[in-house]
Amino acid sequence: MCELLGMECNVPTDIVFSFSGLALRGGLKGPHADGWGLALYDGRAARLFLEPTAAAHSPLARYIRDNPIKTLLAVAHVRKRTRGPVTLANTHPFVRVLWGRQLVFAHNGTVRGARNLPVGRFEPVGSTDSEHAFCALLHRLERRFPRYPGATPELWSAVARIGGDIGKRGSFNFLLADGDHLFARCATKLHYIIRKAPFKNATLADEDLSVDFAEVTTPRDRVAVVSTAPLTRDEQWTAGVPGSLWVFRRGRLRATLPSL
Amino acid sequence: MCELLGMECNVPTDIVFSFSGLALRGGLKGPHADGWGLALYDGRAARLFLEPTAAAHSPLARYIRDNPIKTLLAVAHVRKRTRGPVTLANTHPFVRVLWGRQLVFAHNGTVRGARNLPVGRFEPVGSTDSEHAFCALLHRLERRFPRYPGATPELWSAVARIGGDIGKRGSFNFLLADGDHLFARCATKLHYIIRKAPFKNATLADEDLSVDFAEVTTPRDRVAVVSTAPLTRDEQWTAGVPGSLWVFRRGRLRATLPSL
Repeated sequence: MCELLGMECNVPTDIVFSFSGLALRGGLKGPHADGWGLALYDGRAARLFLEPTAAAHSPLARYIRDNPIKTLLAVAHVRKRTRGPVTLANTHPFVRVLWGRQLVFAHNGTVRGARNLPVGRFEPVGSTDSEHAFCALLHRLERRFPRYPGATPELWSAVARIGGDIGKRGSFNFLLADGDHLFARCATKLHYIIRKAPFKNATLADEDLSVDFAEVTTPRDRVAVVSTAPLTRDEQWTAGVPGSLWVFRRGRLRATLPSL
Repeated sequence: MCELLGMECNVPTDIVFSFSGLALRGGLKGPHADGWGLALYDGRAARLFLEPTAAAHSPLARYIRDNPIKTLLAVAHVRKRTRGPVTLANTHPFVRVLWGRQLVFAHNGTVRGARNLPVGRFEPVGSTDSEHAFCALLHRLERRFPRYPGATPELWSAVARIGGDIGKRGSFNFLLADGDHLFARCATKLHYIIRKAPFKNATLADEDLSVDFAEVTTPRDRVAVVSTAPLTRDEQWTAGVPGSLWVFRRGRLRATLPSL
């Protein structure tokens, strides 16, 4: 299994604190030593950092912690291989272009028979069930919306419905980003928190690293963070209901939809 | 205008020496301060480092120089903006999936009316003529070869022909990589060298940085390097003929084709 991390904000925010917590689980405090990846949006495109090695010992992961890049939307993943060998092509997050924008996807779980799902023009490069399921999701989204529909409930419910369909094949916890939204589907385990004023102190669950968010934010800031397991031990995280989808936009939870 | 750098080898090789020379031209010794990018293949997928800022002063570019990653195939670019604003989406190299592999492209020059070229399923994300021309090239390659044809002269001549067609619209110096080949089209200016035994010393043209390749290679190694301008001052680079395409595979120049 793997761990997911997503962040979606109303002002550019660096993900260093949360990413540090995730990276610890990538081979040091957790068993997720088979690769890691981080996608950071800049408009409709995302910068992608990938390594098919443990995040906890990665000089590149350390570089990212030492050189924070601010973003409105980020998706990260640490991998414990279940399907497919440990290669760059099998390292999450995956990226494809749809609607003239990059869509980013990371998955925790296993989708049985993913290779039987039609993918249309969205060809997999690697051999994971995760990438195949992502391609199938994009194919169905494009059939439903030939053009980007914008921030509409129709888009949100389509992601929930397609996620639920594919999720019947196993365990389909995922994060999907489109440059404007972060979609987070809970199949078995997922948590979120929205940090907003009044900001407080937070301490990483796996390490004595803490940050006083009041010092690094303004009262208008809203930062939604989604993670497989709570990353901090002194904040109140909300657990997802299996078979549901969260939709985040501009640091707000815009919808919670059934995804069965 | 921009500068291109490509490397294609028969054994995994790090690109640090050549990339250092290119990075110097990204804002320090050259005027190419509007972004840089580097794609490093690992099988059929490529790791991509992009920054819409000057390479010469980039901590990420320094990280890459300090933490060499070995690869068989790499494409790099430093950008001097001519069309499109300085954004991540407009930063070369560009990547798309075709034939179940990632294809990587970088361009030096300007293609007039690129937006009029049909791109089929290959949607641009940014606003450059370069990305649009890449999408058009992929669209035509896919129509000619629905599946990857392998290392065949038919593929090589198709790239030369399509490159020549698009090149009629302006200045279309490009590097195109498919995981197995490096294609290099010269419209106005391009150079290559093949380093092989007996290896010698080489010194960067723009800096007193030199390397003795005999110390870091084996007699079997073959490394093809393509660059807009020669990167070293004590090696013999071959200049491209305008309107021609080089095809490199396993460190050898496999073909030089007209591309008019």
